[in-house]
Amino acid sequence: MSDPRVLTVRPSPEQYAWTFGGAQPLATVAPGTVLDLFTEDCFGGRVTSEKTLVSEVCQFPFLNPQTGPFHVEGAEPGDTLALHFVSIEPARDWAASTTVPLFGALTSTHTTASLQEPLPETVWIWQLDRAERSCHFTAREGELRLKLPMDPMHGTVGVAPANLEVRSALVPDAHGGNLDTPEMRAGVTCYLGVNVPGALFSLGDGHARQGEGETCGVAVECAMHTVVVVELLKGIATPWPRLESDTHLISTGSARPLEDAFRIAQLDLVQWLVRDYGFATMDAYQFLSQAVESPLANVCDTNYTAVAKVRKEWLPTPTTPAHGGLHEHLRRTAPRGPLG
Amino acid sequence: MSDPRVLTVRPSPEQYAWTFGGAQPLATVAPGTVLDLFTEDCFGGRVTSEKTLVSEVCQFPFLNPQTGPFHVEGAEPGDTLALHFVSIEPARDWAASTTVPLFGALTSTHTTASLQEPLPETVWIWQLDRAERSCHFTAREGELRLKLPMDPMHGTVGVAPANLEVRSALVPDAHGGNLDTPEMRAGVTCYLGVNVPGALFSLGDGHARQGEGETCGVAVECAMHTVVVVELLKGIATPWPRLESDTHLISTGSARPLEDAFRIAQLDLVQWLVRDYGFATMDAYQFLSQAVESPLANVCDTNYTAVAKVRKEWLPTPTTPAHGGLHEHLRRTAPRGPLG
Amino acid sequence: MSDPRVLTVRPSPEQYAWTFGGAQPLATVAPGTVLDLFTEDCFGGRVTSEKTLVSEVCQFPFLNPQTGPFHVEGAEPGDTLALHFVSIEPARDWAASTTVPLFGALTSTHTTASLQEPLPETVWIWQLDRAERSCHFTAREGELRLKLPMDPMHGTVGVAPANLEVRSALVPDAHGGNLDTPEMRAGVTCYLGVNVPGALFSLGDGHARQGEGETCGVAVECAMHTVVVVELLKGIATPWPRLESDTHLISTGSARPLEDAFRIAQLDLVQWLVRDYGFATMDAYQFLSQAVESPLANVCDTNYTAVAKVRKEWLPTPTTPAHGGLHEHLRRTAPRGPLG
Amino acid sequence: MSDPRVLTVRPSPEQYAWTFGGAQPLATVAPGTVLDLFTEDCFGGRVTSEKTLVSEVCQFPFLNPQTGPFHVEGAEPGDTLALHFVSIEPARDWAASTTVPLFGALTSTHTTASLQEPLPETVWIWQLDRAERSCHFTAREGELRLKLPMDPMHGTVGVAPANLEVRSALVPDAHGGNLDTPEMRAGVTCYLGVNVPGALFSLGDGHARQGEGETCGVAVECAMHTVVVVELLKGIATPWPRLESDTHLISTGSARPLEDAFRIAQLDLVQWLVRDYGFATMDAYQFLSQAVESPLANVCDTNYTAVAKVRKEWLPTPTTPAHGGLHEHLRRTAPRGPLG
Repeated sequence: MSDPRVLTVRPSPEQYAWTFGGAQPLATVAPGTVLDLFTEDCFGGRVTSEKTLVSEVCQFPFLNPQTGPFHVEGAEPGDTLALHFVSIEPARDWAASTTVPLFGALTSTHTTASLQEPLPETVWIWQLDRAERSCHFTAREGELRLKLPMDPMHGTVGVAPANLEVRSALVPDAHGGNLDTPEMRAGVTCYLGVNVPGALFSLGDGHARQGEGETCGVAVECAMHTVVVVELLKGIATPWPRLESDTHLISTGSARPLEDAFRIAQLDLVQWLVRDYGFATMDAYQFLSQAVESPLANVCDTNYTAVAKVRKEWLPTPTTPAHGGLHEHLRRTAPRGPLG
Repeated sequence: MSDPRVLTVRPSPEQYAWTFGGAQPLATVAPGTVLDLFTEDCFGGRVTSEKTLVSEVCQFPFLNPQTGPFHVEGAEPGDTLALHFVSIEPARDWAASTTVPLFGALTSTHTTASLQEPLPETVWIWQLDRAERSCHFTAREGELRLKLPMDPMHGTVGVAPANLEVRSALVPDAHGGNLDTPEMRAGVTCYLGVNVPGALFSLGDGHARQGEGETCGVAVECAMHTVVVVELLKGIATPWPRLESDTHLISTGSARPLEDAFRIAQLDLVQWLVRDYGFATMDAYQFLSQAVESPLANVCDTNYTAVAKVRKEWLPTPTTPAHGGLHEHLRRTAPRGPLG
Repeated sequence: MSDPRVLTVRPSPEQYAWTFGGAQPLATVAPGTVLDLFTEDCFGGRVTSEKTLVSEVCQFPFLNPQTGPFHVEGAEPGDTLALHFVSIEPARDWAASTTVPLFGALTSTHTTASLQEPLPETVWIWQLDRAERSCHFTAREGELRLKLPMDPMHGTVGVAPANLEVRSALVPDAHGGNLDTPEMRAGVTCYLGVNVPGALFSLGDGHARQGEGETCGVAVECAMHTVVVVELLKGIATPWPRLESDTHLISTGSARPLEDAFRIAQLDLVQWLVRDYGFATMDAYQFLSQAVESPLANVCDTNYTAVAKVRKEWLPTPTTPAHGGLHEHLRRTAPRGPLG
Repeated sequence: MSDPRVLTVRPSPEQYAWTFGGAQPLATVAPGTVLDLFTEDCFGGRVTSEKTLVSEVCQFPFLNPQTGPFHVEGAEPGDTLALHFVSIEPARDWAASTTVPLFGALTSTHTTASLQEPLPETVWIWQLDRAERSCHFTAREGELRLKLPMDPMHGTVGVAPANLEVRSALVPDAHGGNLDTPEMRAGVTCYLGVNVPGALFSLGDGHARQGEGETCGVAVECAMHTVVVVELLKGIATPWPRLESDTHLISTGSARPLEDAFRIAQLDLVQWLVRDYGFATMDAYQFLSQAVESPLANVCDTNYTAVAKVRKEWLPTPTTPAHGGLHEHLRRTAPRGPLG
């Protein structure tokens, strides 16, 4: 790996990307680069009060702005891009959430189509106490005031897709994208299979926190300051996005119906144990059936996303350290916390 | 509530039930009764070595024997049965798991039908170290020996179903049954809506531990000694099975496709917050979307089961204590740990 | 086959069955018996005007009354019951349809759960012109008056289920039941696998006509006079309901999600060609992929039902005549049209 | 409409498009243009014998070559493109079909993921008797020789998608694309909503015939000579692809799970009756529930496609002739049969 250097990126409004694939690179970076990024919230920062409705201030498809894409020197199809999240910190002291008519899990949608009236479009503004690291909820009806722990994450991290496709930044799939999993927090390394020269990754959609499944379709959406280390694993394929934390191996699958997302993630984790930990396939299937944690990521997006994760302490010593021991290496060598 | 008394039940082989509904009561119990039960494993104790295949030693539909049913005095449709699990302890120092051809999540099945060959039928015997509280895995191929924490639970807890139906003990649905959620562990209270006079509940399918989703379709199956307190909430309806732990409110939904199980559980939890915690509906929808944990229970049974849970410490003071404060009352008054 | 004899059955209100399994036989019949039956409509005849709402005049679970069950002499698990429909004739000159809140395909339901308001409950009374064989639609809003061809069918035909279960008459599954396929019309033979001694079949849920998929969840519901010949194929198993018409072999599958119902029906038809028509499996898969018709039956019931059908004239001469040539035999020997 | 003129297009190999969106227009055409097209088969013509496997002669993603895209003068987002199929005629006297490992309905796939072995990759070459209009099947195992009626169609017809996306030609969705419905035959008019200036439509994937659902994932694939008239309906939106034949109005929906494809198509047909035929919404829902035909299109592609169709003779006189009476106009004025 080359020596790290820091690239600071504060996109101007017209620099955001709205798709994976099909956008011009914002910059070219060498493996080892530390990126110090600003990401705008999924509404482009336009939803600032309970009275500013997405349907009035946002223009489809200009939702979910991406910081990027970045062209990674030397990345080629068949390689794996590794993104190590050093820090993800809310850039403002408030965040917005909303219901979106015909979007979300507890409503009919444009595909789970019905003749019923849509739910109302309602906005909630959450106050963020960054010192206390809490998110403050104010009910729209009645007097309830509640707080939840802050747990910042990126809903959207991905590379250009395969098969000549360009996908909206709202879509999660094998290229990553809008996975909306709370696992994408500081301290983890995200592995993405490279589909095109340069990988062309971008990220955005910061959430101060999010429930598993993102039931209403929208999290506690906020702009972020994010530090990420970019690495490249040559000649290692990663069919579906994987994450690694200090404690867990984490696979993801994105598909509909939701059981297919589950199947993809579970099979991927079986195959990870077989490739790197010396399991025979049926033994890995049995062992994971008893050991796996299966929290949902989103059940609202174009594809649903399921997570399968297993504690590393329960596994044997890897025959091949997972992805070359990169996560441990990065934890030792990467900066800790926000830069500057 | 009446004074507790203890009823010890050790069923003889012919006393097990194989369905919810349609079986004669094993006993009649008053609310407040403490049941000290033995439950056989889902194979009827017949799978005792790597060489004893389910397909050879078990006879369909005589799988998943239930201890019960119990007729609860005074229980009527519209009431809620509360079962408080004091202790769930493996009755043997081993447990069995297996793959079952055309059953499980990573295989085609009789309904997700394909022309492919089924996976092999393979048995694993797990050793249980009850002192260390660990489950020991022995790979069938190669030399891997691993251990996982013991986390005993009941896969199957239910009442007689509504609509004049009788369901196999392998089915999870609104009446409970084969939910296969690791949340059904000692210390929780399970709430089940009563559909027929006497409720007619039974339980079984002990697991020394189980991964979320029960991927291969079978957990670490073992006989159990279980102590459960039976209570009754008159005039309170519970449409789908709920659980309460010291830390969480937990809703379940069972359906196919898996997103419908998710929807049921999430909607039930929204309605729980609205009924007992003073939320308006849209506020509950928003708050839970940011606060909920959504681990899967099973993605292999006749219906799939999803769980939605929220930390009680994050909620406001209940307007109506959840289910009349019964869980806290039982935690204070019930015996702790195995009897005798 | 034994000599046919005719049994006329006009159930009294308390004689109807509401389940498959769990009901006492109405009569015992020998194979070869011709049954001359009256079936009540799915509302028990109670919805008689646009003002009589199901929610007011019907009491769940007393919906979809079944005429039967009939115990068939000599029927044992592993056999196939054959029901040949000689005639299905509306018993009244009107029929009823309705929307049912939270039931149907274009609405959220109790399992595809949402927070939206249900659709209104609206009744339509259709006039039946039995001479012209037409069904007359009167719009509830505006002046539209339209007519559709009468095409009478039974929505529900089934036997007692396997696995000790009792299922509501509203459920379609491997035992038949509420399949709601327009293919169940006069002139066809329905094959059902026997699960319990005597088979215990019943039928009901007459429809003057029904669209494919039964989109709103309710057809043109009417009481019927139906003549059916009962036959038994000893030692022939039928895992999922099949039908045979003069022109087609017809398989059904019932499951959720809908693609699983499709898979079951298509696989069953592949296996039918392999068993009876001399195809190798992969050749049957290829041939049917180009030849099959795949109209939907229902996309609203507890399980969804898909149909797979192929023209008999396109097939080779059967190596084993399908189900012993029974359909052709019955077409030659059975009475034609209504009796008396 | 402008005077028709004929444009003959015989693409060179490098001129084919592999996506909807993202490809340079092959030509610009005015509304009213008659296109006389050659389309290559989905394998690029490379599968020419039982021994030429797709996995050996085709290179992903270069499957399903599209003839086009064509830029339609004056087409803007919010308009509807109408493509009237005058003739679709096989260009060769043979066609190819195959199984593709981990693709199709009766196998696990990359998303309905399993640990089972894939089915074998097997090729069938069908002989086409264009005079007799039949397709001749030769079994790979055994001596079966069968024939089916020729019923030529295009599996893939679409425009550039919305939301800045580029989709593989293998995908069906709201922009059309790989719908794989046998309804797309000569004599019909296909209506597609325009998403980008010029519409940028293309077509390909000719099938000499196809069963409903395209069970094995591949039809009787052949190159085609196709004549199509291009028209434009200004200011009329079409959210999902519609077709109109002399006898039927036909809606399509593409989604997973399959019930969502069903819901989309049924809702679209309800809305068609409301917009053009004077129905109130609930009346249209009731009427179609009794009148609709619901044959499946594909249950194998990235999205599944369902069809909802209703006989025009059963409908009232349109208040607004469907799509301005364009289909009838084109049937009167367009050339009949192949050109030249």
